Amino acid sequence: MLERNIKLIIEYKGTNYYGFQKQPNFVTIQGELEKALKQLFQQEIKVTGAGRTDAGVHAKGQVVNFRISHPRSLEEIQRALNALLPDDIKVREVACVPLSFHARLNAKSRVYQYAILNRKFPSAFLKEFTAFFPYNLMIDKMRAGAEYLLGTYDFRAFSACQRTDPPKSFVRTISRIEIARLGDLVILEIEANSFLYKMVRIITGTLLRVGRGKMPPEYVKEILLSCRRELAGPTLPPNGLCLLAVKY
Amino acid sequence: MLERNIKLIIEYKGTNYYGFQKQPNFVTIQGELEKALKQLFQQEIKVTGAGRTDAGVHAKGQVVNFRISHPRSLEEIQRALNALLPDDIKVREVACVPLSFHARLNAKSRVYQYAILNRKFPSAFLKEFTAFFPYNLMIDKMRAGAEYLLGTYDFRAFSACQRTDPPKSFVRTISRIEIARLGDLVILEIEANSFLYKMVRIITGTLLRVGRGKMPPEYVKEILLSCRRELAGPTLPPNGLCLLAVKY
Repeated sequence: MLERNIKLIIEYKGTNYYGFQKQPNFVTIQGELEKALKQLFQQEIKVTGAGRTDAGVHAKGQVVNFRISHPRSLEEIQRALNALLPDDIKVREVACVPLSFHARLNAKSRVYQYAILNRKFPSAFLKEFTAFFPYNLMIDKMRAGAEYLLGTYDFRAFSACQRTDPPKSFVRTISRIEIARLGDLVILEIEANSFLYKMVRIITGTLLRVGRGKMPPEYVKEILLSCRRELAGPTLPPNGLCLLAVKY
Repeated sequence: MLERNIKLIIEYKGTNYYGFQKQPNFVTIQGELEKALKQLFQQEIKVTGAGRTDAGVHAKGQVVNFRISHPRSLEEIQRALNALLPDDIKVREVACVPLSFHARLNAKSRVYQYAILNRKFPSAFLKEFTAFFPYNLMIDKMRAGAEYLLGTYDFRAFSACQRTDPPKSFVRTISRIEIARLGDLVILEIEANSFLYKMVRIITGTLLRVGRGKMPPEYVKEILLSCRRELAGPTLPPNGLCLLAVKY
């Protein structure tokens, strides 16, 4: 049997995991996926993920790929994996892709969503999926602040990259930020070629300050150009964050 | 201080509870509410609920009432209860109502929702809130079958009432059944003056048989008139069920 390159689109509730990336002694999404693949194919299989979501962060459209030489059909793979995986990790789609496909390196952009519960009292259902923010929010001001982030910039003011392991570059390109109110929810959707560590959570934390009137929208530009993390807003909790899609 | 009658609208995720009604040695919604009220008012307070939701059943609009003589404002009561209650039980609204108000006896109707995840693969997010049904569903046939249930009938064919503790009457009035598809979800909303034990779950289980083409819509009428539980469909699991509202 020829080697095939298999691409999965997966969704997961990140609440009970230490993030996507495999780590010894921690339960992770990648770890659970590789465990299920090992059970299914009776051999060690390493998966490559498009985005390393943090502990507690969810995904509706994470993309991974791996190589196998087994003759199972794509439908069988999906059904078997969904039976073997835990309740909070599921395979949405399975496809056979060219051997050259690499889930992370070939990704052109990632789309994240941050959900805020914006009402006076917390929710009995949404604690794991939203950040609770009981104060009045001016969505127009948040949108005005977000405008300053569109384009290619050094985004280090909006990153939590550690000094011991900094990225090669802090330059990223944000192509879209949409902010909408849906009943009690305020949803922020943001697309970029890639993201720095905790970037969406810090950007959203900063825009909440703008929306509450604690900071004028124009100040977002000053923070961006300053490259100083301490000027930006707080890092919001991971539970409001979800990787919606990866584009190729 | 004069005695006041306080009405709460509460929401809860029923997954981790043995239903609404207080039972010795079981964690219930009523038990948690009364515990929080005792902490807040430093006295035993008994609440009356509009509907006795079963273990695993959720609520977005359960109504309860209780009497107190404390001078706390309604806003304070809501905030304090929401701080004292577990994450999966929250107070949506607090109101002062006439002393004659009784959450259960005065209720004119209850509205329940049953949610079905109707796609090929399960969800990483919705297991606690939906029943998974991977087969094709003909919504029009389900609606046609539901039509036969509108009105005042002996609904014992759609009840799981035990012989040891039967209700005084099996006659109920269903005023509305709406069935809608929302993406991968099929949502059934049903309103009646009151419901028999497991009635919504058995009705939905029967309509799923109709929707799958295993039973013609007209057969729903035969089941209803037969008064024979064994002719109706299966009792669906509690996790898809939610008490949406109680009307007065």
